[in-house]
Amino acid sequence: MTPEIRDLADGDWPSVWEIVREVVQARETFPYDPDMTSAEARSMWVEGASGRTVVAVFDGKIVGTAKMGPNRPGPGAHIATASFMVAAAARGRGVGTALCRDAVAWARSAGYAGVQFNAVVETNRAAVDLYRREGFDIIGTVPRSFSHPVHGRVGLHIMFLEF
Amino acid sequence: MTPEIRDLADGDWPSVWEIVREVVQARETFPYDPDMTSAEARSMWVEGASGRTVVAVFDGKIVGTAKMGPNRPGPGAHIATASFMVAAAARGRGVGTALCRDAVAWARSAGYAGVQFNAVVETNRAAVDLYRREGFDIIGTVPRSFSHPVHGRVGLHIMFLEF
Repeated sequence: MTPEIRDLADGDWPSVWEIVREVVQARETFPYDPDMTSAEARSMWVEGASGRTVVAVFDGKIVGTAKMGPNRPGPGAHIATASFMVAAAARGRGVGTALCRDAVAWARSAGYAGVQFNAVVETNRAAVDLYRREGFDIIGTVPRSFSHPVHGRVGLHIMFLEF
Repeated sequence: MTPEIRDLADGDWPSVWEIVREVVQARETFPYDPDMTSAEARSMWVEGASGRTVVAVFDGKIVGTAKMGPNRPGPGAHIATASFMVAAAARGRGVGTALCRDAVAWARSAGYAGVQFNAVVETNRAAVDLYRREGFDIIGTVPRSFSHPVHGRVGLHIMFLEF
């Protein structure tokens, strides 16, 4: 069973914030401020006109979310980037894969030339393996650039899929 | 002769903006919006409390500028990043080298574990060679991710110096 992916709607934020807060407070997968407020997270996660924020829904419940848009302005704006978060209780059910495929399809249809992930934590095997299955290559790894609460300083991969 | 490097002071912005505008409008070295306004550039270039913005001065004239700070928040905040711009008329006089050495020294003394450059345009040989001389390695290159007005789509290097 595949989750439904749809654009973020009015009223979704409290459910999305639960997921974002859980993920950033764990400090295991995102180099984001773990103490960010709901307002700060909303301004960071909800994309403007050049991007898109979506939710993944299982049985009417929001279990994941993604944001996507240009990776850089100006001369870098033909490459997209995207970020994905899945509620801990919903992992292992294909939510991340569905979100990733949706983002790649969006980037293709919006005319981007590829999708770049700037900071994939190397110990986040589920994410690294998922992106590889979807065709992303590891461009390089910045060693010891992420402070993991269990594994200490681990590397961040730059990953890239060119269309 | 080495330029003086000092913190950005009140009244410096018009001179710094001339350099930033020249560099971003050339579209050759920075993936920044070439149409940014002075106010947008100022908010992007002038760092807050966790970072630092400096100018390089030759004979009382501002000929270069740099900004530096944490590369990422939270679990990525032990790695610094920095950006350098030199006025076209002042290139080839060691201004970039002086700015780079100052930023690396600042990052060391501030307790960072290294300095990462996220997007060094591969055709910007002066910058790539300078960073290599200062000890930075190319971690990887995202191909065709920068639209150069002369060379077309060229790669962006991720470069890193670990202390």
